[in-house]
Amino acid sequence: MDNRTVALQKHSEWRGKLDIALRAPIENDEDLAIAYTPGVAEPCLEIRKDEDLAYEYTGKGNLVAVITDGTAVLGLGDIGPSAAMPVMEGKCALFKRFGNVNAIPLCVDTKDVDEIVETVYRISKSFGGINLEDIGAPRCFEIERKLVEKCDIPIFHDDQHGTAIITCAAILNALKVVGKKRGDLKIVVNGAGAAGIAITELILDLHLGSVILCDSKGIVMEGNPRNNAVKEEIAHRTNPIHQSGTLKDAIHNADVFVGVSQANMVTPEMVRSMDRDPIIFAMANPVPEIMPDVAKEAGAVVVGTGRSDFPNQVNNVLVFPGFFKGLLRVGATKVTQEMKIRAAEALASVITDEELNADYVLPDAFDERVADAIADAVSAEAVASGVCRPIHR
Amino acid sequence: MDNRTVALQKHSEWRGKLDIALRAPIENDEDLAIAYTPGVAEPCLEIRKDEDLAYEYTGKGNLVAVITDGTAVLGLGDIGPSAAMPVMEGKCALFKRFGNVNAIPLCVDTKDVDEIVETVYRISKSFGGINLEDIGAPRCFEIERKLVEKCDIPIFHDDQHGTAIITCAAILNALKVVGKKRGDLKIVVNGAGAAGIAITELILDLHLGSVILCDSKGIVMEGNPRNNAVKEEIAHRTNPIHQSGTLKDAIHNADVFVGVSQANMVTPEMVRSMDRDPIIFAMANPVPEIMPDVAKEAGAVVVGTGRSDFPNQVNNVLVFPGFFKGLLRVGATKVTQEMKIRAAEALASVITDEELNADYVLPDAFDERVADAIADAVSAEAVASGVCRPIHR
Repeated sequence: MDNRTVALQKHSEWRGKLDIALRAPIENDEDLAIAYTPGVAEPCLEIRKDEDLAYEYTGKGNLVAVITDGTAVLGLGDIGPSAAMPVMEGKCALFKRFGNVNAIPLCVDTKDVDEIVETVYRISKSFGGINLEDIGAPRCFEIERKLVEKCDIPIFHDDQHGTAIITCAAILNALKVVGKKRGDLKIVVNGAGAAGIAITELILDLHLGSVILCDSKGIVMEGNPRNNAVKEEIAHRTNPIHQSGTLKDAIHNADVFVGVSQANMVTPEMVRSMDRDPIIFAMANPVPEIMPDVAKEAGAVVVGTGRSDFPNQVNNVLVFPGFFKGLLRVGATKVTQEMKIRAAEALASVITDEELNADYVLPDAFDERVADAIADAVSAEAVASGVCRPIHR
Repeated sequence: MDNRTVALQKHSEWRGKLDIALRAPIENDEDLAIAYTPGVAEPCLEIRKDEDLAYEYTGKGNLVAVITDGTAVLGLGDIGPSAAMPVMEGKCALFKRFGNVNAIPLCVDTKDVDEIVETVYRISKSFGGINLEDIGAPRCFEIERKLVEKCDIPIFHDDQHGTAIITCAAILNALKVVGKKRGDLKIVVNGAGAAGIAITELILDLHLGSVILCDSKGIVMEGNPRNNAVKEEIAHRTNPIHQSGTLKDAIHNADVFVGVSQANMVTPEMVRSMDRDPIIFAMANPVPEIMPDVAKEAGAVVVGTGRSDFPNQVNNVLVFPGFFKGLLRVGATKVTQEMKIRAAEALASVITDEELNADYVLPDAFDERVADAIADAVSAEAVASGVCRPIHR
């Protein structure tokens, strides 16, 4: 039986990857009187007096909404809210499995930025955090920005920030493998969508080096009428000298190549033009920008992809469960860039110097050290910078 | 320790009455590849071709959103969306415990009818049904009506219809106890809010008899400028001859009194003025319209209240889990009045002739026969009238 058939059959058997389970026993009239009427009135009245007590008396503090409009689902594109549901359920299952975070999928049936923002905002009191998922760029930037302004709970667009955190963690460890130091590296990011821009920002904020950001037309430059606002802003930061050129020009002498673009964009010749011991994270799915064996043959030392059938899989599942676990543990009010930096460093540190090698710069998805390492880093940072609530779990 | 303290302490221990559990195993890379990428793309693509396949490949078909705006919570009134959360979580716990229906609470942070409708509509594709809860009248009527028009899944305002179904079931069995037949009974409903109006409609559609509907000012009459649209409509149906008078006038010679109003509205004298073997359901909370012992002393034969410390507790938990279980089992597209009729009859029939007596006209909340009896009746009616999807569970 092929994988396609197995996946369909299993999904049909499950009829949903999630269930509700009870934390409160309901086995007799006394249980009913405490969990429901009349006893339930008491926590209601307490929360009415102080809204933050919802973190004490309800599940809000460990509940995340996984929200999509279905416009940029996996590599499938705009498939709509109903068809996005299996992915969102899967995401929620991963939240639970790896972070012990309760998460529920909500597929929003509109593509209008303000309608999505309003809808999410109006239900946000029921949740301790919002994970935005598979929303197309540039709408995802505006939706995230507006929700961050309106909501008093953390908003996290995983396609941007989860990808940025794991990519930076991978680069940090790859640098150790090749014996280079962060600081004056030259890093090329190919793909200027949601992930590419977030990766670029986090690389810069981690002070790994300079970034040359490319899109399908070459090096991204300020003033290009094709640029959206976010691209214009990042171009100002990455390309102050208005450098122009192709990906081939950009990659010349680069220390690191990061691809969140399309299949087969990188040639062996380009790899050979890089600085000594090239580091390549070619994350286009399902076919990477360059196949790992081809890249290695051309001299690359560390190569990672988005695929589980090659070493160094760059997989967001290593990030979001622990990241939200950390946010929720301290009732964080927002996500900061500093938290992402700490998370990337914590994730990289999970791999000991003894374990580290060119084919093992990132932990396995099932590595039990990961979620808590990230959670500890994120909650410590939230507490240190005071973006959390007094009630801790 | 008093109940208040116990309820608070338990809610604090639980930190939420619900958890997410996994229906799909995620224990190795193969599991990940089926439940998440790349396998999950297959059910997505199938649903994209035929949206109804969401009932086959996701949990939508067994998932209910319990939605409130927090404006009419228990007897607490307008306490807002955050403070309503403990009740909504409790409701969801009951859905799971009694109907094996997955339900999640969503507290909407607006009181504007159209904003609530838009918000719920936009997320409705993620659910197999919507349970509206504790939304004040008359806004609840308009919200329900507009959602029914827009959505292709069943919408059920439990405070109206759950209460109507259980009350009518109780009346059906009480009639058996006193040896009266449905048809030309005179029934007084005191309280013309959401519950009172829904009870009145269901009594009429069950052809139990005529209804005299009263509010705090007496018999409800058409043309009263205080009437909202729904009250005006029901007045036209219950009071075509423009009868005026007080509750005392209305209750004279009545066979049945149904109270969804306030404490101590009914005197022993009023009970004595009723027809032989009075039937009284005095459901004001926490203090009923007349205390059961007082009513019995004045001659009432069957007395029920909303309280668990007296016989014949009229408790919605007997209805909504089974009702939704029945709707979801057949992928019902809407709720019909006929379903409510069948549900009331099915619930009454759970109690056998041998079991039936004046102090036992309704089953216990933990009676295991109840949910399936109602579910079977509702799904049979949905199939018979064709308001269901071809995919059945």
